[in-house]
Amino acid sequence: TQNYRITLLPGDGIGPEIMAIAVDVLNLVGQQLDLSFTFTEAAIGGSAIDATGEPLPSETLKQCQDSDAVLLAAIGGYKWDNLPRHQRPETGLLGLRAGLNLFANLRPATILPQLVDASSLKREVVEGVDIMVVRELTGGIYFGQPKGIFETETGEKRGVNTMAYTESEIDRIGRVAFETARKRQGKLCSVDKANVLDVSQLWRDRITQLAAEYSDVELSHLYVDNAAMQLVRWPKQFDTIVTGNLFGDILSDAAAMLTGSIGMLPSASLGSSGPGLFEPVHGSAPDIAGQDKANPIAQVLSAAMMLRYGLDQPEAATKIEQAVLQVLDAGYRTGDIMSEGMKLVGCRQMGDALLQAL
Amino acid sequence: TQNYRITLLPGDGIGPEIMAIAVDVLNLVGQQLDLSFTFTEAAIGGSAIDATGEPLPSETLKQCQDSDAVLLAAIGGYKWDNLPRHQRPETGLLGLRAGLNLFANLRPATILPQLVDASSLKREVVEGVDIMVVRELTGGIYFGQPKGIFETETGEKRGVNTMAYTESEIDRIGRVAFETARKRQGKLCSVDKANVLDVSQLWRDRITQLAAEYSDVELSHLYVDNAAMQLVRWPKQFDTIVTGNLFGDILSDAAAMLTGSIGMLPSASLGSSGPGLFEPVHGSAPDIAGQDKANPIAQVLSAAMMLRYGLDQPEAATKIEQAVLQVLDAGYRTGDIMSEGMKLVGCRQMGDALLQAL
Ligand SMILES: CC(C)[C@H](C(=O)O)[C@@H](O)C(=O)O
Ligand SMILES: CC(C)[C@H](C(=O)O)[C@@H](O)C(=O)O
Repeated sequence: TQNYRITLLPGDGIGPEIMAIAVDVLNLVGQQLDLSFTFTEAAIGGSAIDATGEPLPSETLKQCQDSDAVLLAAIGGYKWDNLPRHQRPETGLLGLRAGLNLFANLRPATILPQLVDASSLKREVVEGVDIMVVRELTGGIYFGQPKGIFETETGEKRGVNTMAYTESEIDRIGRVAFETARKRQGKLCSVDKANVLDVSQLWRDRITQLAAEYSDVELSHLYVDNAAMQLVRWPKQFDTIVTGNLFGDILSDAAAMLTGSIGMLPSASLGSSGPGLFEPVHGSAPDIAGQDKANPIAQVLSAAMMLRYGLDQPEAATKIEQAVLQVLDAGYRTGDIMSEGMKLVGCRQMGDALLQAL
Repeated sequence: TQNYRITLLPGDGIGPEIMAIAVDVLNLVGQQLDLSFTFTEAAIGGSAIDATGEPLPSETLKQCQDSDAVLLAAIGGYKWDNLPRHQRPETGLLGLRAGLNLFANLRPATILPQLVDASSLKREVVEGVDIMVVRELTGGIYFGQPKGIFETETGEKRGVNTMAYTESEIDRIGRVAFETARKRQGKLCSVDKANVLDVSQLWRDRITQLAAEYSDVELSHLYVDNAAMQLVRWPKQFDTIVTGNLFGDILSDAAAMLTGSIGMLPSASLGSSGPGLFEPVHGSAPDIAGQDKANPIAQVLSAAMMLRYGLDQPEAATKIEQAVLQVLDAGYRTGDIMSEGMKLVGCRQMGDALLQAL
């Protein structure tokens, strides 16, 4: 039996409910495929602030570093929105990304045939959409120095952040993107704002140079404003997208929303070695927390991504993904993806249906 | 007779064709309402580079400064895409914005009932959408210092841009936005990334403080990633949006594309005094230039915005806007907005139909 040490970060809001389902699913799949998981919980985000005063206690980071993979649910909530920055849930997440050196964020936006009608876009526009956004996650304006709020000579305040990338930072995310595209449809679109930003000019130059090493991948470039338009106009033109931290934040969320069902979408954050971090795209939904209404599927699919990208267990990942398709085919729906004629279920019931399907 | 000095900047690609229509329309409306226009053309963008080596010759800027309003068509094209930055068409446009101190960019995204089906979104999602994006245009990461490509200690290159706003820059665009919202549905949504960026934190604090002076306007805040999602999910929730230069670039284009017909959308760029700049949202479409295929309506509606916001002639503006609705009702369509059962026309024919309607 292969054993994996998994750190669980249930976080805030609906986090604990959906994490419980993912754990059950992992345990069952593990039994079936002779894998075993040692789960250890740790605190992050708002609940960590409440318990320790810090959004990322150092024991949490240490424990994550010592594990084979980290499964996160969701963080944040109104309650912590007005704390100073270093005490905000988001700061904990940024610290975790930096602390584990997770420079590559993979965000699929895939529309399942069963849920096409959940999209705000026309069926013919979204049917078959299958986009992978590769977002740089530990550089750019999220971490660039100098940053802060400073006083100008005239005595007023000036807020400053720095968007910066070095050649090696661009190359390393570029390689992940080319390799991702190669395993998909072989099309990579790099998004920047090179007509205005110097940092984007360097980005474009390096990505263009890298392309020589990946002649089987078809590379194109778009300015970020145009990319936002094209995602809305005709998303099927995209296969793999690579972009910086801030543009990736915006475009991956726009792409996710094209599907109309962000309760379904997982993500993976990877470094060059060490444990990866796997989490749903959606947030902590404090308004429905503790009511057994949350959709656990994005969390379960995050566990599948963990098996595929973090633990190199593609068979187990596929099993879970198949189970999700099965319960959807059987008509099970949580409130967020409910439509006429389907069976409305809660979080726990959806979990049971998944276990059944497995 | 009131006389106005208008600088025309036809620019590149389809620019000259669509500008010709707008000039005809202005002349006719002027005749009808006892206004006269003295038009002077000047060079900008790619055609200025070809003629003078510079995208914004100093005579062009001077002439714009000396006029009552500036009407621009479109700039850019593949031909100039690989020149060094200071010789790129876009650099001319940025120079013009800075040179005229045009800090407030108004970008309406309105869907006309006649064109609802052109949208990639479902009818019920976009019908009635009427959003005004107020984008800060002379600050933020577009102009922040330091910027450039520098060498690091380890000898590799590092691209850098600076996103910065001072309190007074935020206040001045904030006031324009609150006043714009007040004349519309009284709802203002401020978009930032305050959970990560210090510059956004200052932005949010100032906009929140300003709200005290505009108690008739309902203010909300969204993070930019969420705003991109909400625009796709349910755009009718928005009335007026205010945001910085880069976020405004991305979101106004996404909002424009929701309508499915960016050949219809005008924009205005305003300073606190001096001439404003009025231009279509769409680009120079080099692929169809000179073929009499372009849609001149965005250019004509930009002339209407010029009358309304630049010259304080709302009656003339309304006349033009009505004429546009009339020709659409009569079934005239250029290729970009063509649909079954409508009359396909070229740029010139569309212009004639507009003159007829007037
Ligand atoms: C919570 C926030 C810091 C985070 C980000 O901006 O990266 C989130 O929006 C995301 O996309 O994971
Ligand atoms: C051409 C480019 C410099 C410009 C911008 O980014 O502002 C354009 O995209 C726009 O939105 O007007």
